[in-house]
Amino acid sequence: MSSLWERVSAAHVFDLEQPRFAGMPIHPAHKPGYHYALHRRHRDTYRPDTHGPRTSASGLLTMMEHSGTHIDALCHQACDLRFYKDVAVDEVERSDGFTAYGAETIAPLIARGVLLDVARWKDVDALPPNYAITADDLAGCARATAVEVKPGDVLLVRTGFATRWADEAAYLDAAGVSKSGNIWVAEQRVRAVGADNMAWDCMQERDPETNMLLFGHAHLLVTHGIHIIENLNLDALSAAGHREFCFVGVPLKLRGATGSPIRPLALVG
Amino acid sequence: MSSLWERVSAAHVFDLEQPRFAGMPIHPAHKPGYHYALHRRHRDTYRPDTHGPRTSASGLLTMMEHSGTHIDALCHQACDLRFYKDVAVDEVERSDGFTAYGAETIAPLIARGVLLDVARWKDVDALPPNYAITADDLAGCARATAVEVKPGDVLLVRTGFATRWADEAAYLDAAGVSKSGNIWVAEQRVRAVGADNMAWDCMQERDPETNMLLFGHAHLLVTHGIHIIENLNLDALSAAGHREFCFVGVPLKLRGATGSPIRPLALVG
Amino acid sequence: MSSLWERVSAAHVFDLEQPRFAGMPIHPAHKPGYHYALHRRHRDTYRPDTHGPRTSASGLLTMMEHSGTHIDALCHQACDLRFYKDVAVDEVERSDGFTAYGAETIAPLIARGVLLDVARWKDVDALPPNYAITADDLAGCARATAVEVKPGDVLLVRTGFATRWADEAAYLDAAGVSKSGNIWVAEQRVRAVGADNMAWDCMQERDPETNMLLFGHAHLLVTHGIHIIENLNLDALSAAGHREFCFVGVPLKLRGATGSPIRPLALVG
Amino acid sequence: MSSLWERVSAAHVFDLEQPRFAGMPIHPAHKPGYHYALHRRHRDTYRPDTHGPRTSASGLLTMMEHSGTHIDALCHQACDLRFYKDVAVDEVERSDGFTAYGAETIAPLIARGVLLDVARWKDVDALPPNYAITADDLAGCARATAVEVKPGDVLLVRTGFATRWADEAAYLDAAGVSKSGNIWVAEQRVRAVGADNMAWDCMQERDPETNMLLFGHAHLLVTHGIHIIENLNLDALSAAGHREFCFVGVPLKLRGATGSPIRPLALVG
Repeated sequence: MSSLWERVSAAHVFDLEQPRFAGMPIHPAHKPGYHYALHRRHRDTYRPDTHGPRTSASGLLTMMEHSGTHIDALCHQACDLRFYKDVAVDEVERSDGFTAYGAETIAPLIARGVLLDVARWKDVDALPPNYAITADDLAGCARATAVEVKPGDVLLVRTGFATRWADEAAYLDAAGVSKSGNIWVAEQRVRAVGADNMAWDCMQERDPETNMLLFGHAHLLVTHGIHIIENLNLDALSAAGHREFCFVGVPLKLRGATGSPIRPLALVG
Repeated sequence: MSSLWERVSAAHVFDLEQPRFAGMPIHPAHKPGYHYALHRRHRDTYRPDTHGPRTSASGLLTMMEHSGTHIDALCHQACDLRFYKDVAVDEVERSDGFTAYGAETIAPLIARGVLLDVARWKDVDALPPNYAITADDLAGCARATAVEVKPGDVLLVRTGFATRWADEAAYLDAAGVSKSGNIWVAEQRVRAVGADNMAWDCMQERDPETNMLLFGHAHLLVTHGIHIIENLNLDALSAAGHREFCFVGVPLKLRGATGSPIRPLALVG
Repeated sequence: MSSLWERVSAAHVFDLEQPRFAGMPIHPAHKPGYHYALHRRHRDTYRPDTHGPRTSASGLLTMMEHSGTHIDALCHQACDLRFYKDVAVDEVERSDGFTAYGAETIAPLIARGVLLDVARWKDVDALPPNYAITADDLAGCARATAVEVKPGDVLLVRTGFATRWADEAAYLDAAGVSKSGNIWVAEQRVRAVGADNMAWDCMQERDPETNMLLFGHAHLLVTHGIHIIENLNLDALSAAGHREFCFVGVPLKLRGATGSPIRPLALVG
Repeated sequence: MSSLWERVSAAHVFDLEQPRFAGMPIHPAHKPGYHYALHRRHRDTYRPDTHGPRTSASGLLTMMEHSGTHIDALCHQACDLRFYKDVAVDEVERSDGFTAYGAETIAPLIARGVLLDVARWKDVDALPPNYAITADDLAGCARATAVEVKPGDVLLVRTGFATRWADEAAYLDAAGVSKSGNIWVAEQRVRAVGADNMAWDCMQERDPETNMLLFGHAHLLVTHGIHIIENLNLDALSAAGHREFCFVGVPLKLRGATGSPIRPLALVG
């Protein structure tokens, strides 16, 4: 039997992260988003006579933890000021983050990954703007594309909006998962979900019972402890026709933060 | 044969990242280091009567890209204002980063990983402060611990300083790799290297020929295109006695940045 | 004779600064503009039993030095890589700012101030969008409103766009000073100028000779060493009908920075 | 009679601000303090053939509002979660600052200024480290140096620690005002106070009644609505022997912030 590293190295790697740059789309709540200032430049310290030929450059990142492709920590969302498993917000909220459910508590996600390629199943480049993907859509897509969603999976849903990444207005109008879709997802007892849009949820949909936006954020993160990954690019994976893969997603241990940037991979082979 | 995800999911995961928090050690050139400001808190938007029970929290990260456990991009270092393969600094340096060799150009590192546990081989908790690990040390450790370093490997070197992570002064005095050690490493044609210290190199050692500090930064990144990973925690891997593993390190695609925070994993099984 | 403090304290104070908040207009080159994150809150440290009743709160400012009402330092602009009085950019540019002509070199501006209220003179609330104020406009307005511009003055020009401060798109279309207007201004040998718009200059106008935008930035800061103040609110001063006043503008000594936020005052009395 | 601008322009200006740079002293609660990253450099946009000779440079400020010479807003301090005049913290605290008592509510301070030069009165370069200046000290110094403190004044106290500005450890050990000194100050019904140290108060002194540190922060800001200015440099004013002057201090209108950087001036003449 081949060693683990031989097996994994031989896999085809699909990179599910969007590129990060100032001006990439950002949710209004997470302005100013992302900025990188390269201020230490190579010529600044170039003194070949006295210090040799080597020089160094570096810069400063200013970013909301929910900018770009990222994963939500469980402390990101609360219902009635309670987190998952009834942890009280007031007990764990600090100026430098949360003492429970921060990004550093998210174990590396190494799991079976499945793709529900709703856009492709509906035979469109992208779903209609602000379309709310229903439970029937998800179940129908799973059936039609022979995807069995299992407990512990990382479940990815493709809307087709990844190509709008350079256009904030268009991207913020992406389709997302509806209330019924979120209920269905939780019933599958997956470990994490993700989509190629800003908020996983359909951002326009209000829960008629509570008047709450982003029902899935409450239902998945708070009620069920299921992590959400946003701003994925699933297009290459879709084009290659893969529906099952080895998902590798490794959040940074940003102590107390409500999420982490992440570069998820789908390994096939 | 088991599927890839079954094989990988069954592996034991060693987490090689140090935790990230304000006050963790930082190289003087990379002050102010790291800061997380949680400013959007749950009570701020709690309006159950009109908006339902759900609330959100998030914050702002301010960080040098070389804070915490991170990988150096090839644009981080130059010699005589030239990068790897003779790319001219002046052609690619911008206010928002480099148009060549930025962090976004680093492919996910999925490779055979090997550990040269120099501290353990020398039977010490940690090498002496500022000790410069020689080529003989590396070759001797490899021989004694039956590690064969191969082209394409990710080569990790353990100094034993990871436990000083909460004490900047002590941590900055870590042992590191000497000039001879760096030459030996490059000869092995590895893909990337890493250590449990701030700078990989021995920070006190000057190259007698050029008067240059951090010889390895020039030799590995500029001459050989070998990435450097810093501030690893290799203690659990060492304690478990593993010398060969599947290394998984996935930098963020920070466009133009000179490095990326990273949470590397060693998979065994 | 009354003491200085009695005289000054008795003056009527016109506050010429726009309020600072995330979302205020910003020049595209100066994104991400301005952000304030209040992360240290009062309840965080409230321990009356052990530490008494007192608590503290504070936050983090992230801002371009050219956000909001601000003054340009002489290092902000160069022509052919030379600053005012032929200082070479390359000699004084560092990762942490300029070693010449930084904001810390701007002496407090305490001088005779004059207002050329071009909008009021033309009997409009605001000049047309992107209107370029000519030398004839300035001279005509000065004549008609009996303003004599003298060497050493701080010369303020009113376009009427201050009321658009909450609307970035409208504000960026403000009128500004044309090439001929800038030449006229420099001839008056004033010490500093300012306007109620983003860039002092008309942002749409290109110098036909050089194809350069923002002619005044070159002509005033580089050729003549005259500081520029931007994003003023001159409406109250205009409404009160004052054309001459004591101008007080005190930049922060931000070492090496290319400008400073400022809250200029016009004192009358 | 001379015009106001003539009178003010003729005054001698004492600059009471310390220079701002990365590495200046900062209170532990306000780390990471101050940083300026110059990332937009002149050569970046130098295209003389197509855009003319002009180029621009600018950078990014990352700073706590309590870094450097600054003034405390009334929302900076609370007692039993109440601000000055019994405003409840919980009613006005937001992620982007306070809706009451923010820095933008501080009117420009233009007032009679007086200097109690305690260090000079005691005939020392600087008071002993951590010395707590008593009511008797302040009253004695006022009497001996013929300073009459009046309602509405800005009262400055000199410890002699301004020269330690480049040495954080030494500077944080500055002398400051004791509980009794703060009670005396409030009785004078001044409008604002300031000192040449990090915290105005003696940072080591605990109020024996409540165990509270920084008694003056509670007594002045919360009980009496008197602003505090920190990190002044009073040495030139002291050397010139001035005890009464026209104080000019103009905070920035940072909406909701708990303080503002400030460059205060003492005008004499």
